[in-house]
Amino acid sequence: MEQSQVINETIKSQLDHRTIREFKEQDIPKEVLDQLLEVARRTATSTGMQACSIIRITDKKLKGEIASICTQEYVARAPELLIFIVDQMRNYQILEEKNGNLDNVNGMDHYFASFTDACLMAQNVVNAAESLGLGTVYLGSILNEPTNLCKLLALPKFTFPVLGLAIGYPNQEPQLKPRMDMKYRVFENTYKIYDNYLEELKDYDEEMQTYYDLRDTSRRVDCFSDQVVTRYSKAATKRQEILNVIRDQGFDLKVKE
Amino acid sequence: MEQSQVINETIKSQLDHRTIREFKEQDIPKEVLDQLLEVARRTATSTGMQACSIIRITDKKLKGEIASICTQEYVARAPELLIFIVDQMRNYQILEEKNGNLDNVNGMDHYFASFTDACLMAQNVVNAAESLGLGTVYLGSILNEPTNLCKLLALPKFTFPVLGLAIGYPNQEPQLKPRMDMKYRVFENTYKIYDNYLEELKDYDEEMQTYYDLRDTSRRVDCFSDQVVTRYSKAATKRQEILNVIRDQGFDLKVKE
Repeated sequence: MEQSQVINETIKSQLDHRTIREFKEQDIPKEVLDQLLEVARRTATSTGMQACSIIRITDKKLKGEIASICTQEYVARAPELLIFIVDQMRNYQILEEKNGNLDNVNGMDHYFASFTDACLMAQNVVNAAESLGLGTVYLGSILNEPTNLCKLLALPKFTFPVLGLAIGYPNQEPQLKPRMDMKYRVFENTYKIYDNYLEELKDYDEEMQTYYDLRDTSRRVDCFSDQVVTRYSKAATKRQEILNVIRDQGFDLKVKE
Repeated sequence: MEQSQVINETIKSQLDHRTIREFKEQDIPKEVLDQLLEVARRTATSTGMQACSIIRITDKKLKGEIASICTQEYVARAPELLIFIVDQMRNYQILEEKNGNLDNVNGMDHYFASFTDACLMAQNVVNAAESLGLGTVYLGSILNEPTNLCKLLALPKFTFPVLGLAIGYPNQEPQLKPRMDMKYRVFENTYKIYDNYLEELKDYDEEMQTYYDLRDTSRRVDCFSDQVVTRYSKAATKRQEILNVIRDQGFDLKVKE
């Protein structure tokens, strides 16, 4: 059996994934959105605690403000905009009502479990959406200004924004983006560092330059290793101080000196 | 159009998700595993940096040691065991080879972007696996002992374990686990705290008691709110000190006093 024979509609759609940033001016029908949220509901969740939530952004002004944080104007035009969040607030309330132990609900282990759950839920929604012919773009850029975003969404203590997701009917057909060979990303039993990545990634670097990036049509895209240099050359921003904002939201970092 | 009509093979499989902990003694064919890893490769990744990786555990002794960390003996018997990791090491190496700026590669914004990517990749693999009739169980419990796990997998600096995933052909048919209504988890524009969760979740609490948990067949399962009380009553463990281990792995927490 060839790898290419291990295929079905689900995997076909997954292998065909592209980021879609331009959407038709067409709303997602309520019954489609409801089904996407039902898929979100059925996503695996750490110890059954369901400690993540979704803020659906329907307010135009708010959408614009989030677009500003993301520094991506197309976010303001997205038919659907969902913000996935860490949510230990609901369980905190339940503990309060049941006179349970409130000492650990703000622990970083719970934070990371919630953060993980939120991401799993987001990808489950993406797979469902793409299987229905919808396009999606993840917005990690919502974390450019975490304090501001928490304020805009009126996020209470024990919650924190994880990831944004815009969804709509695609109005562009991007090329499949080249990715490096999985031999550099999948290891057996122990991590493997290669001796010379520039040599190893030479073909990939070349392949990347054939990629036509719809975001900036005015210039040829850099090779991957140059993209890495550019990406990490940026001076540290308030993005790096994310843990301070997590602490502002009530979590106990428990960092030892 | 009814919600129930918004359906296809992908969504059907997603709505049918159950955690599978017992697998047939049957290996996953190489071409199936390769296809799952190809799906992993095609997963969305923050700014194209591909800064997450997978450690595939094939060594029996190592599998047993990870099962001990998880305190789940079935992990030792899983046909496939994958550990998804934050991986800024590869890009660090590329930066070194290119004389790029090494100051920010250890920043927590990059850490969280990688962590997110690792989770998205894991859920993409889960959806592909389940669409092929495979069963899966996430193992957040690999983080019971993060220092020990980093050592066992020989994880270098700028890497960190995120989530374990066991995959195999199901040897059990668990009941669909009840989940709370999404009105408690999806909000419009701003977070909503309900006045009385015990009253709100009354029906869900009852429904949960009809759930037959295959993990502990000797007793009836607690209602959800009691599960929350039990889950958070546990004293703080070394799990909570996860940030200290993340710092040990070379990341700069940038926590201000």
